[in-house]
Amino acid sequence: MRSPFPFSAIVGQDEMKLALLIAAVDARVGGVMVFGDRGTGKSTAVRALAALLPPVPAGQVGYHAEGAAPAKGKAAVPFVDLPLGATEDRVVGALDLERALGAGVKAFEPGLLARANGGFLYIDEINLLEDHIVDLLLDVAASGENLVEREGLSVRHPARFVLIGSGNPEEGELRPQLLDRFGLSVEVRTPQAIADRVEILKRCDAFERDPAGFAQGWAAQEKKTLKRIARGRDLVGKVEMPDSILSRAARLCSAVGADGLRGELTLMRAARALAALEGAKVVADAHLDRVAALALRHRLRRNPLDDTGSTARIERAMGELAAA
Amino acid sequence: MRSPFPFSAIVGQDEMKLALLIAAVDARVGGVMVFGDRGTGKSTAVRALAALLPPVPAGQVGYHAEGAAPAKGKAAVPFVDLPLGATEDRVVGALDLERALGAGVKAFEPGLLARANGGFLYIDEINLLEDHIVDLLLDVAASGENLVEREGLSVRHPARFVLIGSGNPEEGELRPQLLDRFGLSVEVRTPQAIADRVEILKRCDAFERDPAGFAQGWAAQEKKTLKRIARGRDLVGKVEMPDSILSRAARLCSAVGADGLRGELTLMRAARALAALEGAKVVADAHLDRVAALALRHRLRRNPLDDTGSTARIERAMGELAAA
Amino acid sequence: MRSPFPFSAIVGQDEMKLALLIAAVDARVGGVMVFGDRGTGKSTAVRALAALLPPVPAGQVGYHAEGAAPAKGKAAVPFVDLPLGATEDRVVGALDLERALGAGVKAFEPGLLARANGGFLYIDEINLLEDHIVDLLLDVAASGENLVEREGLSVRHPARFVLIGSGNPEEGELRPQLLDRFGLSVEVRTPQAIADRVEILKRCDAFERDPAGFAQGWAAQEKKTLKRIARGRDLVGKVEMPDSILSRAARLCSAVGADGLRGELTLMRAARALAALEGAKVVADAHLDRVAALALRHRLRRNPLDDTGSTARIERAMGELAAA
Amino acid sequence: MRSPFPFSAIVGQDEMKLALLIAAVDARVGGVMVFGDRGTGKSTAVRALAALLPPVPAGQVGYHAEGAAPAKGKAAVPFVDLPLGATEDRVVGALDLERALGAGVKAFEPGLLARANGGFLYIDEINLLEDHIVDLLLDVAASGENLVEREGLSVRHPARFVLIGSGNPEEGELRPQLLDRFGLSVEVRTPQAIADRVEILKRCDAFERDPAGFAQGWAAQEKKTLKRIARGRDLVGKVEMPDSILSRAARLCSAVGADGLRGELTLMRAARALAALEGAKVVADAHLDRVAALALRHRLRRNPLDDTGSTARIERAMGELAAA
Amino acid sequence: MRSPFPFSAIVGQDEMKLALLIAAVDARVGGVMVFGDRGTGKSTAVRALAALLPPVPAGQVGYHAEGAAPAKGKAAVPFVDLPLGATEDRVVGALDLERALGAGVKAFEPGLLARANGGFLYIDEINLLEDHIVDLLLDVAASGENLVEREGLSVRHPARFVLIGSGNPEEGELRPQLLDRFGLSVEVRTPQAIADRVEILKRCDAFERDPAGFAQGWAAQEKKTLKRIARGRDLVGKVEMPDSILSRAARLCSAVGADGLRGELTLMRAARALAALEGAKVVADAHLDRVAALALRHRLRRNPLDDTGSTARIERAMGELAAA
Amino acid sequence: MRSPFPFSAIVGQDEMKLALLIAAVDARVGGVMVFGDRGTGKSTAVRALAALLPPVPAGQVGYHAEGAAPAKGKAAVPFVDLPLGATEDRVVGALDLERALGAGVKAFEPGLLARANGGFLYIDEINLLEDHIVDLLLDVAASGENLVEREGLSVRHPARFVLIGSGNPEEGELRPQLLDRFGLSVEVRTPQAIADRVEILKRCDAFERDPAGFAQGWAAQEKKTLKRIARGRDLVGKVEMPDSILSRAARLCSAVGADGLRGELTLMRAARALAALEGAKVVADAHLDRVAALALRHRLRRNPLDDTGSTARIERAMGELAAA
Repeated sequence: MRSPFPFSAIVGQDEMKLALLIAAVDARVGGVMVFGDRGTGKSTAVRALAALLPPVPAGQVGYHAEGAAPAKGKAAVPFVDLPLGATEDRVVGALDLERALGAGVKAFEPGLLARANGGFLYIDEINLLEDHIVDLLLDVAASGENLVEREGLSVRHPARFVLIGSGNPEEGELRPQLLDRFGLSVEVRTPQAIADRVEILKRCDAFERDPAGFAQGWAAQEKKTLKRIARGRDLVGKVEMPDSILSRAARLCSAVGADGLRGELTLMRAARALAALEGAKVVADAHLDRVAALALRHRLRRNPLDDTGSTARIERAMGELAAA
Repeated sequence: MRSPFPFSAIVGQDEMKLALLIAAVDARVGGVMVFGDRGTGKSTAVRALAALLPPVPAGQVGYHAEGAAPAKGKAAVPFVDLPLGATEDRVVGALDLERALGAGVKAFEPGLLARANGGFLYIDEINLLEDHIVDLLLDVAASGENLVEREGLSVRHPARFVLIGSGNPEEGELRPQLLDRFGLSVEVRTPQAIADRVEILKRCDAFERDPAGFAQGWAAQEKKTLKRIARGRDLVGKVEMPDSILSRAARLCSAVGADGLRGELTLMRAARALAALEGAKVVADAHLDRVAALALRHRLRRNPLDDTGSTARIERAMGELAAA
Repeated sequence: MRSPFPFSAIVGQDEMKLALLIAAVDARVGGVMVFGDRGTGKSTAVRALAALLPPVPAGQVGYHAEGAAPAKGKAAVPFVDLPLGATEDRVVGALDLERALGAGVKAFEPGLLARANGGFLYIDEINLLEDHIVDLLLDVAASGENLVEREGLSVRHPARFVLIGSGNPEEGELRPQLLDRFGLSVEVRTPQAIADRVEILKRCDAFERDPAGFAQGWAAQEKKTLKRIARGRDLVGKVEMPDSILSRAARLCSAVGADGLRGELTLMRAARALAALEGAKVVADAHLDRVAALALRHRLRRNPLDDTGSTARIERAMGELAAA
Repeated sequence: MRSPFPFSAIVGQDEMKLALLIAAVDARVGGVMVFGDRGTGKSTAVRALAALLPPVPAGQVGYHAEGAAPAKGKAAVPFVDLPLGATEDRVVGALDLERALGAGVKAFEPGLLARANGGFLYIDEINLLEDHIVDLLLDVAASGENLVEREGLSVRHPARFVLIGSGNPEEGELRPQLLDRFGLSVEVRTPQAIADRVEILKRCDAFERDPAGFAQGWAAQEKKTLKRIARGRDLVGKVEMPDSILSRAARLCSAVGADGLRGELTLMRAARALAALEGAKVVADAHLDRVAALALRHRLRRNPLDDTGSTARIERAMGELAAA
Repeated sequence: MRSPFPFSAIVGQDEMKLALLIAAVDARVGGVMVFGDRGTGKSTAVRALAALLPPVPAGQVGYHAEGAAPAKGKAAVPFVDLPLGATEDRVVGALDLERALGAGVKAFEPGLLARANGGFLYIDEINLLEDHIVDLLLDVAASGENLVEREGLSVRHPARFVLIGSGNPEEGELRPQLLDRFGLSVEVRTPQAIADRVEILKRCDAFERDPAGFAQGWAAQEKKTLKRIARGRDLVGKVEMPDSILSRAARLCSAVGADGLRGELTLMRAARALAALEGAKVVADAHLDRVAALALRHRLRRNPLDDTGSTARIERAMGELAAA
Repeated sequence: MRSPFPFSAIVGQDEMKLALLIAAVDARVGGVMVFGDRGTGKSTAVRALAALLPPVPAGQVGYHAEGAAPAKGKAAVPFVDLPLGATEDRVVGALDLERALGAGVKAFEPGLLARANGGFLYIDEINLLEDHIVDLLLDVAASGENLVEREGLSVRHPARFVLIGSGNPEEGELRPQLLDRFGLSVEVRTPQAIADRVEILKRCDAFERDPAGFAQGWAAQEKKTLKRIARGRDLVGKVEMPDSILSRAARLCSAVGADGLRGELTLMRAARALAALEGAKVVADAHLDRVAALALRHRLRRNPLDDTGSTARIERAMGELAAA
């Protein structure tokens, strides 16, 4: 298989990179939705992240049949790429026909949700996926479990994964209820500076001519990022969360008018993950403020009397909190 | 499997908790529909209830094939979670293919309706379910029996369960005829007080960091609730129902203009269950009044000349009854 | 299975009870359509009727394969409840797969239409049934035969039954052509008198607390009704039908402008059945007049210049006949 | 099976009876479409005709596999009643699964089109049939052959039958192109005279009370009609067709503006069949005139400047021909 | 099978007969689309042509499996009649199930496209055929090859045939892109002269009474036509095509504004075939002019400022060419 | 199989020929979309290109099962023609039923995507293809890999090919997001000059009369083109790309307002391929300018205030760059 474009070699796009790193540190943040123009490298960045994930205990990932011996050793973090045209039975799992016909046994053949357990499930162009599959994926992502009730099978297995979607708003919007299920969202745009664009062309050209050599040139940078993620994962359970931060989160959500509590729960989790990523032991206001747009932008109701964009409204509310 | 968030640790949401407790005491009340904003903990509350149900005689729950030996001992009250994407054959039951192919016998393989018998059937986001499945569920819930006429099978088995649905009115309304089939309905909203929101964040955080420890901290509270439900179940068949209460129910329904008699039947049953839950031996006006909004709110016709909300209209009618 | 609510214990709803009794006396009257608000006991009444039907010779009901020995003794009148979600093959019958796979024989497995032969076929919420199934049912109900041309089978068997449908006009109207196929129609409404409503609540409460005891209390009433039906069935073939009655029927249908002749044929049959039910030997004007609304109400064309309701128009025409 | 209502006992409806008798004499006339209000006895008349058809040589009807021994003796004229819900494979024929699975042979199992060969195919409520089945039936009816190209089969067998359809124009019109494929069309209406309506009620009542006795009472009439049909079938190939009749047919069609030549071809055939039915040896103007409305009524274009009905326009054109 | 109506006995319809003869001489002309009123004998003419085609070497027609011995002798030119309701697998060919199940071999069972190879494929009422089948047929007709990629098969075989379609523009138009794929098009109308109509009636009557005798009476005429076609087929490869004719074709197409080059390619081929049919050795202006309307009529764009019909526009352009 | 029309014998259409040659030199340019009127030889040109491709090492093309011995020698560059009606399983590959049923092994049977690996995949009339197949093809074309998750299979294999589509904008537009995935696009039109049109007719006529002889006459020209492609393929990895060219590409894309970076990436690749095709060692401004319209035309947003066509806007922007 082709080696991916190195994560560190992506020019700009800092917000997208931050969101992906936070999700890599703590899966409970709940998925990342990447919006953006066509041709802005959305898929490249997400696929690049896959190469950066540190291995984990084998028992924590993938599917383990009931009664099987516990898995030993380390395993790569799963990164499952949901292909367009994947059938529902391959996504949720199905009757294992080979064993059913051969041995006459009704066994479960795990699907992509099982394979993604403990890792990432990536859906490029999520707005092209059929609605009932999207509902199904979000339902499983939220509960962390896959319940299969099909063809006489009744199976329940863990399916904890970070859902990453990418899409172009011009090709059809996602329903607000679905958006709300994603923890973070980012917007990527075509870079405007000619120098940046030339730099991107040069890196793409170099990568196309010699992928292995190009990867070699960025190996040191990649290693650094890998280390940051590993440290973040270690720390995230120990970072302290002062009450003032929780209160700030609740006041911010109340000020911008986000429905429900998913906004502040995500703010809390993302701020903690960011603190861990940066090696801090206590969550600070700055951590919260830096993830506020990521966590809330896609949860705001449209206000017909105020057509300020979502990001601007969040920033204004943060300014007022600071001033208060 | 993950231990659920404790029922008692839910902050606020008293109306929802009351409706669920009433349904736990007497299944004949007929199901609970939970409406509300996204992210307000609807699913959390319903799933928490499952852990609170006292065990019952094994013969009263689940499926028992005709001619099989009677079940002995106690069994947990079933709590079935209908997954999105469950096929119709898994819901109603189907031909047991394994036995059909293996032993050449046309046997019935019970479905989710059979498994839910004597317990609860929960449907998250009921407005996303296909219409014909909803019709089917309500039909079975109303008659208490599942008639299966498919693939050459003709089976009839008891399927008495409390149907619990949750949904967001913004994602599509349910037809009035379907709503009418639910005994009770509640509306949940995002809490507005910053202190409440911070408290919720703190409890969620504590639960995420250490689910088992958190459950331990709430065990005493949970036990108390379990005892109240058990006592209510014992009492509910013995509570006295004065004629004045029935007349009050009829007058109230007549005043608010609810179609049909399901409104007052539900009022009668819910008031009786509430009395039992609280250890009363005779149903009082206050019991009726406390469940009036739960039982009638979703049964009112829209009056184009009076845009007062359903709850307000019920309260006004109760006020007039009292004044009369 | 649960014992049904006694037919005699139904409060009010005299028109519905009359129509059901007429259909029980003479199936050729052609089916009863029950319209009404939700929660008015439509299903309760129809299901209650099932317990009242006297047994008949076994050879007259159900399915008898060609060449099989004639059935002996008495059998209960079939009462088939068409479940929502019944597949077309279970309704009309299908290839018996078990015998096809096992013995290699192409045998017919009778469906619900065969089972209902000689009895009743009940469809709750007929407006929710798929159109092609409704067409099929009415076609068979009208011809009294079921022709099966499917999967290489070609079977024809008697399928004479009374079709009983219930529906709420608010959930979608039936096509005029389908309505016309029902012999009688009734409209049920929520009782308005508080005393009636309280009485209903009390009976429901008593029935819920002790179904068997409640049934016992109404047994004598039920027996009386059973006897009336049995006597009516005996007499119906012998009741005399004076020409003046036929002429009155024709003039009445002509006056209200019913299309076709199904109106007066139904009037004739229903008046005869009512006479038999009441032990009369000759059909009188009063018998005709009492069934006129039942038989014609659903067959009138809308007259855009006269918005009088169907029932009122029939009564006015009867008044004019009397005055002439 | 129930004995049908006798053809001769039908009150009035002379035009429908004439069209059916003409089709019984010469199938090449090409099918009869019966339009009319609901409840006017359309189906009764068509089904009654079935009992009147004289037997024919067995080799001329039904299906005969290639290479099979020729059929001997006489056989009843087939009368196939197409049930709603018949599947396409039963209509056109299909792979004989029993023989395919048993003997491993790919044999053809003839369908309803094969069974109707040499006889009648009746479709009640033709407007409820799926379009592609109607197209298929008309295509086969026109070519007299059934080509089956399905499931690896390639079979061609004779399928000459008279297609008889009935329908209510209020339930949806047939496309002009389909109507044009029917040879004759008739319109039936509810009789208006009270005396006729009473007579119909009396005959229906007598038939319901004692079908066999009723049939006995009409046996002599039925025999007469059977003899007329048999004589007509004998004569129809020998009746002389003067050029003046053909010219009259062409001028009439030209005058009323019927598209194509199917109008005058049908006129020629129907006039010849009528002459044969009445024992005439030469076709006369009167024969042509009596079938003109039957053969042309459904072939006229709507003229927006002349809203005279089809029948009136045909009669006016005949008057002008006579005057010329 | 019935003998067809003789081609020569068709009254009038010269344009349709010319187009069919040209297609019989040179299949590369590319198919004939026959438009017209219902009942004008479209199908009769096309089916009659089938009886006129001279036999060809067996290896040039039908399907020959790879590796099979070459076919010897002469074979009739295939004339395949595509029945409505033919399934896609029968059209393109499919897995031979009999051999797959019996011998376990994945063999190809050729379909109607293979059978039509080297001959004619006729589709009556082409506007009733499903779009994807029409696309498929035109695609194969244009490339002369059938590529089958289904059910694990991957087969490619020659499928050169003349596609003949008939249709009534009132039943739905074909897309311009599909029309453009037909080489020639003709319009047929109901004859207006009474004498012609009487003559048609007389011939149809004679044919119906005695098909064999009628065919005998036209045998000499049919033989002449057969000889003309055979001579045309011999000559068509040798006819000389002067540059002036090509230039005339290009100027004509340019003048009437036909898109693309299919118009002039068809003109060239049709003029050559007509010359060959008439025994000419060099194509002359008159040949081109006589086929111009046939080849171009269905390729013109609608000009909203000039509502002259297609045929008139082509004739005007030819007049201007002559005048220039 | 028929020999194709020689690429060199195509009259005019220089832009289309250039785009196809560039794609033949470097597949990473990313596919060619050919728009144009019907009948302008789009398919002829693309099919002609197939005959011109030099053979490559066998291991670089088609499908190679995991673990199989490496392929040796040279193989023709695959040219796969996607037939209309190809099923999804034949496109992406599927379970090998023969081996599954025979040997009980779940093996993968590669589809058209596998066969096209290392070569070309041609879709004539791409706008007639079903949307989900187009999405699938573009997704695979972009990633260079085919992920199959169906029927219990989970396979991933290289699928690098140049996608070539042709379509007529009048038959339905492609979505902007799909267009953006094609590297280059060209527009072909009907030639207007009579001399060109006559020349085309003469070449077609000569080709139809003697395809082999015609090909022979163009063999030398074809060989020259083949050599140019082979040299280009050799050189393309070594051509130098000055920074000034990259900057010019970025400025041009910025000036015309193309979204994302696919425009300038394609410009870079296409200019390099053109330089290689012409034997240049360094990319020059002229190379970039000659491919600008091909690479950008289909990527521009419509500007409602400036209805200049896409090509004109690109040329104006190039003029301004030159002037700057």
